[in-house]
Amino acid sequence: MSSQFGSLFKIATFGESHGHAVGVVLDGCPSGLAITEADIQADLDRRRPGQNRLTTPRKEADTVRILSGLFDGRTTGTPIAMVVENTDQRSHDYGDMQTLYRPSHADFTYDLKYGFRDFRGGGRSSARETIGRVAAGAVARKLLREACGTEILAYVSQVADVETTIDPLTATLEQVEASLVRCPDPEASARMEAAIDAARKDQDSVGGVIQLAIKTAPGGIGEPVFHRLEAELARAFLSLPATKGFEIGSGFAGTRLRGSAHNDLFHGPAGHIGTDTNRSGGVQGGITNGEPILCRVAFKPTATISQPQKTVDKNGNEAVLNAKGRHDPCVLPRAVVLVETMAALVLADLFLEQRARHGLFPAR
Amino acid sequence: MSSQFGSLFKIATFGESHGHAVGVVLDGCPSGLAITEADIQADLDRRRPGQNRLTTPRKEADTVRILSGLFDGRTTGTPIAMVVENTDQRSHDYGDMQTLYRPSHADFTYDLKYGFRDFRGGGRSSARETIGRVAAGAVARKLLREACGTEILAYVSQVADVETTIDPLTATLEQVEASLVRCPDPEASARMEAAIDAARKDQDSVGGVIQLAIKTAPGGIGEPVFHRLEAELARAFLSLPATKGFEIGSGFAGTRLRGSAHNDLFHGPAGHIGTDTNRSGGVQGGITNGEPILCRVAFKPTATISQPQKTVDKNGNEAVLNAKGRHDPCVLPRAVVLVETMAALVLADLFLEQRARHGLFPAR
Amino acid sequence: MSSQFGSLFKIATFGESHGHAVGVVLDGCPSGLAITEADIQADLDRRRPGQNRLTTPRKEADTVRILSGLFDGRTTGTPIAMVVENTDQRSHDYGDMQTLYRPSHADFTYDLKYGFRDFRGGGRSSARETIGRVAAGAVARKLLREACGTEILAYVSQVADVETTIDPLTATLEQVEASLVRCPDPEASARMEAAIDAARKDQDSVGGVIQLAIKTAPGGIGEPVFHRLEAELARAFLSLPATKGFEIGSGFAGTRLRGSAHNDLFHGPAGHIGTDTNRSGGVQGGITNGEPILCRVAFKPTATISQPQKTVDKNGNEAVLNAKGRHDPCVLPRAVVLVETMAALVLADLFLEQRARHGLFPAR
Amino acid sequence: MSSQFGSLFKIATFGESHGHAVGVVLDGCPSGLAITEADIQADLDRRRPGQNRLTTPRKEADTVRILSGLFDGRTTGTPIAMVVENTDQRSHDYGDMQTLYRPSHADFTYDLKYGFRDFRGGGRSSARETIGRVAAGAVARKLLREACGTEILAYVSQVADVETTIDPLTATLEQVEASLVRCPDPEASARMEAAIDAARKDQDSVGGVIQLAIKTAPGGIGEPVFHRLEAELARAFLSLPATKGFEIGSGFAGTRLRGSAHNDLFHGPAGHIGTDTNRSGGVQGGITNGEPILCRVAFKPTATISQPQKTVDKNGNEAVLNAKGRHDPCVLPRAVVLVETMAALVLADLFLEQRARHGLFPAR
Repeated sequence: MSSQFGSLFKIATFGESHGHAVGVVLDGCPSGLAITEADIQADLDRRRPGQNRLTTPRKEADTVRILSGLFDGRTTGTPIAMVVENTDQRSHDYGDMQTLYRPSHADFTYDLKYGFRDFRGGGRSSARETIGRVAAGAVARKLLREACGTEILAYVSQVADVETTIDPLTATLEQVEASLVRCPDPEASARMEAAIDAARKDQDSVGGVIQLAIKTAPGGIGEPVFHRLEAELARAFLSLPATKGFEIGSGFAGTRLRGSAHNDLFHGPAGHIGTDTNRSGGVQGGITNGEPILCRVAFKPTATISQPQKTVDKNGNEAVLNAKGRHDPCVLPRAVVLVETMAALVLADLFLEQRARHGLFPAR
Repeated sequence: MSSQFGSLFKIATFGESHGHAVGVVLDGCPSGLAITEADIQADLDRRRPGQNRLTTPRKEADTVRILSGLFDGRTTGTPIAMVVENTDQRSHDYGDMQTLYRPSHADFTYDLKYGFRDFRGGGRSSARETIGRVAAGAVARKLLREACGTEILAYVSQVADVETTIDPLTATLEQVEASLVRCPDPEASARMEAAIDAARKDQDSVGGVIQLAIKTAPGGIGEPVFHRLEAELARAFLSLPATKGFEIGSGFAGTRLRGSAHNDLFHGPAGHIGTDTNRSGGVQGGITNGEPILCRVAFKPTATISQPQKTVDKNGNEAVLNAKGRHDPCVLPRAVVLVETMAALVLADLFLEQRARHGLFPAR
Repeated sequence: MSSQFGSLFKIATFGESHGHAVGVVLDGCPSGLAITEADIQADLDRRRPGQNRLTTPRKEADTVRILSGLFDGRTTGTPIAMVVENTDQRSHDYGDMQTLYRPSHADFTYDLKYGFRDFRGGGRSSARETIGRVAAGAVARKLLREACGTEILAYVSQVADVETTIDPLTATLEQVEASLVRCPDPEASARMEAAIDAARKDQDSVGGVIQLAIKTAPGGIGEPVFHRLEAELARAFLSLPATKGFEIGSGFAGTRLRGSAHNDLFHGPAGHIGTDTNRSGGVQGGITNGEPILCRVAFKPTATISQPQKTVDKNGNEAVLNAKGRHDPCVLPRAVVLVETMAALVLADLFLEQRARHGLFPAR
Repeated sequence: MSSQFGSLFKIATFGESHGHAVGVVLDGCPSGLAITEADIQADLDRRRPGQNRLTTPRKEADTVRILSGLFDGRTTGTPIAMVVENTDQRSHDYGDMQTLYRPSHADFTYDLKYGFRDFRGGGRSSARETIGRVAAGAVARKLLREACGTEILAYVSQVADVETTIDPLTATLEQVEASLVRCPDPEASARMEAAIDAARKDQDSVGGVIQLAIKTAPGGIGEPVFHRLEAELARAFLSLPATKGFEIGSGFAGTRLRGSAHNDLFHGPAGHIGTDTNRSGGVQGGITNGEPILCRVAFKPTATISQPQKTVDKNGNEAVLNAKGRHDPCVLPRAVVLVETMAALVLADLFLEQRARHGLFPAR
């Protein structure tokens, strides 16, 4: 079990779906950054269930409490602990989970690995685990905004077979938040809504893709060879529940191009060297080049569905699972802030690492 | 610069394209494992240039020398240092690289990050850096084979627009090695060869996809929440040069399915619980479930092409780059062993971590 | 600021003297270990102020709350978060601390490092920070007891000029806890009490030495070359407030012996190889040899004293500090559990690391 | 086995006494630092055997070869690999080591931990392992000198019962190197020489203490709470072979003082705040305060002596060991550079960490 992430901007998350509380300890945040609970709450509110009819009807306020690390409204450089109490814990909803393995969930593998598990609401494998990440990510986002002017934006670009084809660089936070699905393209958003509604009606679920678009990334970030930015992002995103894939820049589609069509040609002038195209996705050799960072994350359809499903119990006996809990027919709208969170945590960490060494012995 | 990888099976790689040597120090290998230089050389030979007409004509023997960590043919539990001297260093081939930024290479970003760079042959951003990884990976593979019976196999499943549709679980090492492209499907292999030849003839390059298929993975491997197996694999693969994407199990395509079609249903009997399908790719909740591990890695077309390309020099002045070096029109055949290497390093690391805690306090 | 400790049994502590709460997140504890809040509270009670007339008169219940990581009374293998709310926060006691630098405290260096500081009660540099360590240490102790039968005992062996000369291996927990000073030698204990009382009467403070004695240490623990057991212990103890020195086995006194007098000679029989003497302190080459682990930690006299002291304010202006807070004239009685805590954290971590690799490829 | 050290200035050492080579990979050195092999060799020459009649008569040139990480005489920011081939390997000198456990050596514990060991010359537990450290430490020293003007000096302050009482701040490198014992006090040096000669004549060995004195330490270095400077130094020094103790500032002797006598009082003026005394040893709350860093490291007498010693073989049978190898009757003169090395590695690492965050959000 490794619930620690980051080298210089380090988090340790904790908490299960139906335990007393979930949260995070953030270690390594520089001193002097102005932070309030409202800064944290804003991102938590984008993650929490019950936001609208597309998400699970569970109502959880998810109110954050900052226990340490602030003084006079600013970070002191000491660990920032943030906790959200678990309040809505109707555990009777999850009766079957105690005895049956839910398909494409982590019930079986947790038993395999740990010998037993907290079966209430998925325990640690519940998406509720991500609350601590989001709280720490809110601090990372503020750090990046204040230190580099970097804004991190993600949105839903595909749900089931519905895709938007807008230019990621044109999307705005307002557009994203104006959509129930968190897709900035109103036409596609409407069709995505319909796809989600249809799945719910069929007691089924859908998956999709989230696009990340960071327009104002600082250059020089990323630590070759193993901590290339794309490697750290890939790991960060694939650590989110329900993720199945990652691509940066041209991604899988780019594998079909020839080099002459794929290469990003440079242009000047000096001090403003850039590339004509951005199939690299803002990263070359693992290091940001100052162009926008563009990547995409694949989320599978929600594993919990209301239809009866064939499965087995712990002893391998065949059984039928009838899931009764409240769940999202599509996790993507609520996962947008998770993708932003992980990107912020990665960038804040690598930004501090770059700062440790950069400019110490200037080039002659 | 972070050239260290792994927590319990830890490697530190070093070396540039045209420096004195490249290599690795592997720390944390358990004692008692029988290892010879031949074990290492076998994998290095699959990586080295000049294997056949599809790869770069550079001839480098890449002979490994084990400097430490073995006694009487077995690992002692102390660090294993392995070095390959650089011999074929025709640095005059790379004249333009000193002044011009090669498109979609790391020249510009290395200058941005480090202030200057070793421009000979790409320096540290050269694929030659991967030699140390392969050497350590060979030890990881042997460890996994001896300890778990795990065999790691990868192959080229797509080059440009040519794809094989074989079932990954039917591929064998013999089939893979019998193909110049390292595609176990002879028909697709022939068409891939043709695509590569055509690109070379056009002074161009092609990309593609490598499929990983681990049929005999141990269960219980992977450390939620941040060191889920898929997260560690994603990071590992995206740390390889030229990679642009990763997917596991159903991947991006799976995002278009509904949950009812995507979920992997369980079957018994007890002690042999498995899943009817494997869209999860062998991992649920970040932990292996004993089903085969299946994932895919996207490689962009080789950035170095012989055609003239528009670019700029360090001062932002426009220029035309005429690359003269010897290079691969397609990196995938030589990258197969790199994908296997990274998978082995990840699995060995997580296997040791699982071993640290598993079964200490058996379930009542 | 690095408040994370351990590699496989990893803790992240948080909290300031006068913040909302202090605590810890413990990641990496194996599943299946029976733990209750009472197990944790027992060690916290040995650390808390107000235990008796020798310690600070501050009364703080320091009641622990376990937020996560347990199910059905056992660890699940997921992070264990433990929190103690801060209740007795009479911050008006510490007025001068806002403007003046307390001699031999961390006020000046925190300002130097972080730009400003939480001046209430010493903030993060307060000994209150150690609460999280003790809570996690209680879990480590239980793990070691259940897994290896290892009991960790420390006691006060010196206060000011008063020393006990008892054999550390004869000390018992009952004897230690029967003494207000936590010295198992009644005669020395009485003289130590007198020394502390005299210091308090003089508005002064005293320091001393704590002896660690682990009689039942497992063999083979410690990871050469940098994570030798003595190196990890030294770091752990020197991370405690007020510590100034560490020695293991013969320590500084042993530097005056010749090799012929210092070496620990081996005796048999097979399977029970041991040493006639134990100047090594239970560790050879950084690895435990099965003999008792014996080391000593030096604590300086409490920096806070009630006498007026010359100092400066933040602007360098001369001033006189009159400390009014409640404080311990001698930290050692309450620090005994801290030494035990750090030893337990180190041993649990290295025990898991040894478990990861040991016996995988048995010697032929 | 953990042969990696440091977080941002990271080393991985390798090599056994009688393997092919020993060395190090240094990762994380900032780019642009001018380094030559001569810089490294200078420190290696202070470590190597055969320097004069006080050290082992083994002659080993210990010539370093830098394999990577430099270009045009400067560090590129990529890993710096440095290797020293083992040349003088008269393994027939060590015959008994194959079967008998040498008292107070690591033979028994290596067998216990790893199942078997490289018995030639002590294998990895040989002091020869420190060569890689010294090579990396030479780079750290140059970094600290160029970046902070910090000079690191250590010297032998005690051998057996002979102590020097000079003020550590008066010692110079020239004085230290002018003494065969590396004690800057000529009178004490002569008596130390005599003590060593007497021990050798008696086929015996002596131990002692090394004093570290860093006069020009930057302020603000050290990461509370677990990476306090004294904690990192203690760990670093106790990771050296033959060390038994560490103390900083007033150390063990300071435990006998009262607080009023021990506290370091502050003086101004602003911008030049300092302390009248330095019992803190340059560190308060784990962070450097700009005063000199003063600490001491205890080394036991050399375990290898030429006298016959009682011991056992692997099967527990009693035996008599007659060590025939060439060895130092006193390790301290050659260990001075090791203490400097570890101090440099710790300071460089913590200096980079401080640089990562300091001044990012300046105090208002």
